[in-house]
Amino acid sequence: MKRIFEVSPWTITTHELNPADKRLQESITSLGNEYMGMRGMFEETYTGDSLQGVYIGGVWFPDKTRVGWWKNGYPEYFGKAINALNFVKAEIRIDGDLIDLAKTPFDDFELSLDMKAGILHRSFIVKGVKISVDRFISVAKKELADLRWTFVSVDKATHQLELTSLIDADVMNEDSNYDEKFWDVLDKEADEESAFIMTRTIANPFGVPQFTVAARQRFVSDLPAVGSVNDDKQVGNVFAGIVTETPVQIEKRVIVTTSRDYDTNDAVKAATDDLFADIASNTYNDLVIDHTTGWAKRWEKADVQIEGDEEAQQGIRFNLFHLFATYYGNDARLNIGPKGFTGEKYGGATYWDTEAFAIPVYLGVTDPAVVKSLLKYRYQQIEGAYHNAKQQGLAGALYPMVTFDGIESHNEWEITFEEIHRNSTIAYAIYNYTHLTGDRSWLENEGSEVLIGIARFWADRVHYSARNDAYMIHGVTGPNEYENNINNNYYTNWMAKWVLSYALENIDAVAPEFQTKLNVTAEERKRWQEIVDKMYLPEADVTDVNGVPRHVFVAHDTFLDKELVPVRDLDPKNLPINQHWSWDRILRSPYIKQSDTLHAMYYFPDAFTEQQKRDNYEFYEPFTVHESSLSPSVHSIIAADLKMADKSVEFYERTARLDLDNYNNDTSDGLHITSMTGAWLSIVQGFAGMRVRDDQLHFEPFLPDKWQGYSFRFLFRGRLLSVAVDQNGSHVELLSGEPLTIDLAGEKLTLEA
Amino acid sequence: MKRIFEVSPWTITTHELNPADKRLQESITSLGNEYMGMRGMFEETYTGDSLQGVYIGGVWFPDKTRVGWWKNGYPEYFGKAINALNFVKAEIRIDGDLIDLAKTPFDDFELSLDMKAGILHRSFIVKGVKISVDRFISVAKKELADLRWTFVSVDKATHQLELTSLIDADVMNEDSNYDEKFWDVLDKEADEESAFIMTRTIANPFGVPQFTVAARQRFVSDLPAVGSVNDDKQVGNVFAGIVTETPVQIEKRVIVTTSRDYDTNDAVKAATDDLFADIASNTYNDLVIDHTTGWAKRWEKADVQIEGDEEAQQGIRFNLFHLFATYYGNDARLNIGPKGFTGEKYGGATYWDTEAFAIPVYLGVTDPAVVKSLLKYRYQQIEGAYHNAKQQGLAGALYPMVTFDGIESHNEWEITFEEIHRNSTIAYAIYNYTHLTGDRSWLENEGSEVLIGIARFWADRVHYSARNDAYMIHGVTGPNEYENNINNNYYTNWMAKWVLSYALENIDAVAPEFQTKLNVTAEERKRWQEIVDKMYLPEADVTDVNGVPRHVFVAHDTFLDKELVPVRDLDPKNLPINQHWSWDRILRSPYIKQSDTLHAMYYFPDAFTEQQKRDNYEFYEPFTVHESSLSPSVHSIIAADLKMADKSVEFYERTARLDLDNYNNDTSDGLHITSMTGAWLSIVQGFAGMRVRDDQLHFEPFLPDKWQGYSFRFLFRGRLLSVAVDQNGSHVELLSGEPLTIDLAGEKLTLEA
Repeated sequence: MKRIFEVSPWTITTHELNPADKRLQESITSLGNEYMGMRGMFEETYTGDSLQGVYIGGVWFPDKTRVGWWKNGYPEYFGKAINALNFVKAEIRIDGDLIDLAKTPFDDFELSLDMKAGILHRSFIVKGVKISVDRFISVAKKELADLRWTFVSVDKATHQLELTSLIDADVMNEDSNYDEKFWDVLDKEADEESAFIMTRTIANPFGVPQFTVAARQRFVSDLPAVGSVNDDKQVGNVFAGIVTETPVQIEKRVIVTTSRDYDTNDAVKAATDDLFADIASNTYNDLVIDHTTGWAKRWEKADVQIEGDEEAQQGIRFNLFHLFATYYGNDARLNIGPKGFTGEKYGGATYWDTEAFAIPVYLGVTDPAVVKSLLKYRYQQIEGAYHNAKQQGLAGALYPMVTFDGIESHNEWEITFEEIHRNSTIAYAIYNYTHLTGDRSWLENEGSEVLIGIARFWADRVHYSARNDAYMIHGVTGPNEYENNINNNYYTNWMAKWVLSYALENIDAVAPEFQTKLNVTAEERKRWQEIVDKMYLPEADVTDVNGVPRHVFVAHDTFLDKELVPVRDLDPKNLPINQHWSWDRILRSPYIKQSDTLHAMYYFPDAFTEQQKRDNYEFYEPFTVHESSLSPSVHSIIAADLKMADKSVEFYERTARLDLDNYNNDTSDGLHITSMTGAWLSIVQGFAGMRVRDDQLHFEPFLPDKWQGYSFRFLFRGRLLSVAVDQNGSHVELLSGEPLTIDLAGEKLTLEA
Repeated sequence: MKRIFEVSPWTITTHELNPADKRLQESITSLGNEYMGMRGMFEETYTGDSLQGVYIGGVWFPDKTRVGWWKNGYPEYFGKAINALNFVKAEIRIDGDLIDLAKTPFDDFELSLDMKAGILHRSFIVKGVKISVDRFISVAKKELADLRWTFVSVDKATHQLELTSLIDADVMNEDSNYDEKFWDVLDKEADEESAFIMTRTIANPFGVPQFTVAARQRFVSDLPAVGSVNDDKQVGNVFAGIVTETPVQIEKRVIVTTSRDYDTNDAVKAATDDLFADIASNTYNDLVIDHTTGWAKRWEKADVQIEGDEEAQQGIRFNLFHLFATYYGNDARLNIGPKGFTGEKYGGATYWDTEAFAIPVYLGVTDPAVVKSLLKYRYQQIEGAYHNAKQQGLAGALYPMVTFDGIESHNEWEITFEEIHRNSTIAYAIYNYTHLTGDRSWLENEGSEVLIGIARFWADRVHYSARNDAYMIHGVTGPNEYENNINNNYYTNWMAKWVLSYALENIDAVAPEFQTKLNVTAEERKRWQEIVDKMYLPEADVTDVNGVPRHVFVAHDTFLDKELVPVRDLDPKNLPINQHWSWDRILRSPYIKQSDTLHAMYYFPDAFTEQQKRDNYEFYEPFTVHESSLSPSVHSIIAADLKMADKSVEFYERTARLDLDNYNNDTSDGLHITSMTGAWLSIVQGFAGMRVRDDQLHFEPFLPDKWQGYSFRFLFRGRLLSVAVDQNGSHVELLSGEPLTIDLAGEKLTLEA
């Protein structure tokens, strides 16, 4: 754990610049607008350790690297989010000296992320000049990044200033194999007013599109332009003049366009001019207002307030801020990468995290269209899912573990074609949307194709075990990735059965067009029903770590043969085990990375009895190390469900400030974007007990001991609600929309706006 | 299957040059002398498809490439056998035209490997000139490779000849990631008499030594030297003159030295001169005689004669030839790579194949010193084995799956730290040597350290399962690599138990020096004994594919839950499954790549009852696809044991001409060197029923129906025996050594020389 920013409700501020924490600082101060994003690296020269990163949503590269003995069904390449041109780069010279905060002495450093406005501020005094810089990536105009420097003399002297503002295409990924560079420069130009550069990803043998990315910069400057830069892979503009006690400002506007939005390279280039024309008459303030208004609208629907715990307050806003910076449903070709735009590793690829953890949040805090975009994303990629199943010799649709375009692009077999439980979560998202919104149209149209594709996959992926007279699923990795290639993972089997049941339940309601297209035969239904009836889901009588007899679901075939030493009996120096143990030892251990047998209880809280939840929670949680950032929130929710308020709060605390306090000591690589959902889920589904039952919204809130109160906004079927919980009880208010009857702690309330 | 060479008892000859089969031809005509070796590529320019390969024993490179999410316990690098300088390269010009058999019309092509002499001949007529070239890698002088060209005019005209003989250091591996090149040139020189080049492997960050390899060439030529070549990465000498009906010859001698034998680069260089000085007075014939005498001595001890089956005759000699070309025990730092010097993939790394399949052959056909060298190899690498175990957080010694120096250098976790049954085979080799030779000195000295190290590994690697009151081994890959990460692989558990028993049996006999060093405590023995007593080895009553009830060892925990469709019921278009099925489907299938549950029956034929062998063979063999080239021989031996002569012969035939007939369609990549053992094992341990029981040699031979007879030499405890089997029965003759009593088909015979 390491906290380098001050606690404050709406800002993330520090007055320190510790070179050892630079990467961590950069991750936390990342910005994004779904279309593009960047880490919080400094604009001007910084020769200390730093991880530069500018990423464009949906722009990636297939890494060809292979090691070992590639086998049939392994993916052809490893998809990577790649670093794109660095358009914030600058060189600042004062009185001829290059400013480099790794070397140049400085004072009064401040770095502050304003989460309400979505603006990153930085200021410092160097060589008698105070330099301030504000930057934002507009949520009003996706292609626009704006930076404004302010220079003022603070030592009464006048100073000579030179600012070289650059766009640098000579960028690479730190994890690039053999230092492979992914970009060629196609075109560039620089004059006194602007600079332009256009790049394209290098060729690949896999048929993955090459992406063109272009950027143009223009300025509104108090100082005159004095030159330009036109290097091999870099362009720029130079401004120079005198700095006195009267502030001078230089505003840099960057427009970034890509071949994702324009058919030809000419059009990509022309668009940079057209988009500049659109904002030619706008002042900096105009652009800021458009941007901050966008953020205000988001917060209006989504803000969570916590009284009596400023750390928690800051944490939840930080989480929502970065979630929204990564994704806000504007482009159905995009999704939510586990590190969003904040780092390379895992980067902007799509994982099941979206459906498992992000959709439940977006369903509560954004218009349904946002989640619809995420559902469309999977529908658009169904051909890829058919392809993935076919690669394994299987029928139906297998949604990928890691992808940019629907094709599996991760390269470890134990993940790629074993962690197939993800497939059920894609179906669950359709159910979840339908269940929460009451809108069956997706399920009955496009969604049905996804659901049936997944059902067909499962029907082919099971096998019949004669000696057990049961259908089994061998060779999987469950949500608990600390085991690989296990047989009959309870969760995987349970969810496969659920998918087949859900498909059977809904197939007759599907729109005729899709009924015809899907052509589910009577024979097929019969087989699905047989699998549902005979799915292997063994239970066992065991004793929990406290000696209490429990009747549990068996995690997988041989889990109970392990050496069942609970986590509490491990010498703490072994923790986290993923940093101290070999993978061999981890695989053979009973330690669970994240909720596994319990996971369906999070998805379907009403499908299990209280005793089932309690027995499984009490038996398995003591073996759970929660070394996935996605684990604590699920346990927080289940603990709340079991009325274990203290446990629920304890788990909440492990997720709420994960990155802000660098809990896992890896935030320097980038933020855990999809884990940003955890705090919200713990508060809303855990503490407030939000459920939808028979189309009715239920809350059963409790107040954590150390809080004075909390309140949150919640969107439900066209209504905006405010839910407030304090020591006097719970209050739900309908802020807008039609009257609604809800259930609050067992009591029916009809609300009017 | 593809046969491109003519059947003949002592030669491998073809009169065809089919460009599509060029790589296959090259593999089959490889040469080697343990110290170095090369594929059968042409010397002169050949612009068609070809896989060039010159390899030096023990010279390798650690490939840094990683993909995916590297975890603790994964190896740091992937060890590769690398292509070294190509010292046979040449350019031939006749009347000014470059000869290139891919383009230049030619006649009377002949390519012939003389296995008795160890010489590769090639001749063809081109542009009126017959060109013949003989080459060998001397088994008498390891650093010497010799090539002799003969040119003669066959069209009555005279022709202008120019031969440029080169040493090319600009070589790479075909599977090199990102076309990485492994060599720097350190030094070179070329004059009219000789050319020299010295190379060193590029730096690596892993502490793996950089190897220096140097080569010098000198000539005995009827034609005058007319120049030299001194390019950046290539040196050479040029000869030119007139070719008439009187043959002209150019003999090229190459001396190859390496930093493996000399401390400094200066010494490596000086040695090339010194070694040339040693042979300065030798004629080509002298050098050939030294070499062929070496081969004659090998054949004297090892030859197998088969009457009535020329294909089989050729096959067995081909196999022994390539085994001996790869390894003959001259350097205890070397081992037997699965592809020897004949290809890149798997290349010259050390696998458990050596102890499992090669040692049993070498024990029968070479002096015990050869096997002793292989045992020393593992002893010398014990620190590496301790390191490998420690990398997994385990005690004792874990011998690597793939290595050049003792450190694990393969990079797939399911192999690296799961296919740990290999560790027991290292101990088995000690037993096997002791059992066959009667020499306990290795076991009681250095061997004890290896044995106890392995025992300690197993004692730490098992875990206690409370609910079964048994010791289990989870998370392994058995010999059947078509399953990964299984629990309680019967073979692995059985062998671990055997290792612990064997260690307990022998620890008191170990020499005092090693007793002290090893310090096996009473407590440790007690634990080992407890593991031996409680090792989990379940059996089950099942029904075989023919409906016969069988009582079998359970292959692993969930094997019997599979969909048990025998191979015979598969549509043959699915075979081999490793070419038609995804790895996912293979892993979940019941199909066995090579002997698994049966494997210990091959190692310890007398440790199981006839009924156990029969039940397990009948149950498991029908699920075995034998897609490892190491599978058929084991089944041949077990089938012979069970008096199933036809089955035994059937399996023999799948191994005897594996590469000669390109059975697996992959010989173009290189030969299956360690599988070369299969035919000999089938004949000697299978057909002839060779066993050692209570220090007495037993044979119980049968004659395959289609053969008229077979005979083989066999070395046993200082005696050379000849065993002959024909339609009249079996005859064993003692060719040299002290009198010996043997058991022949149940009859005791005392033999005298």
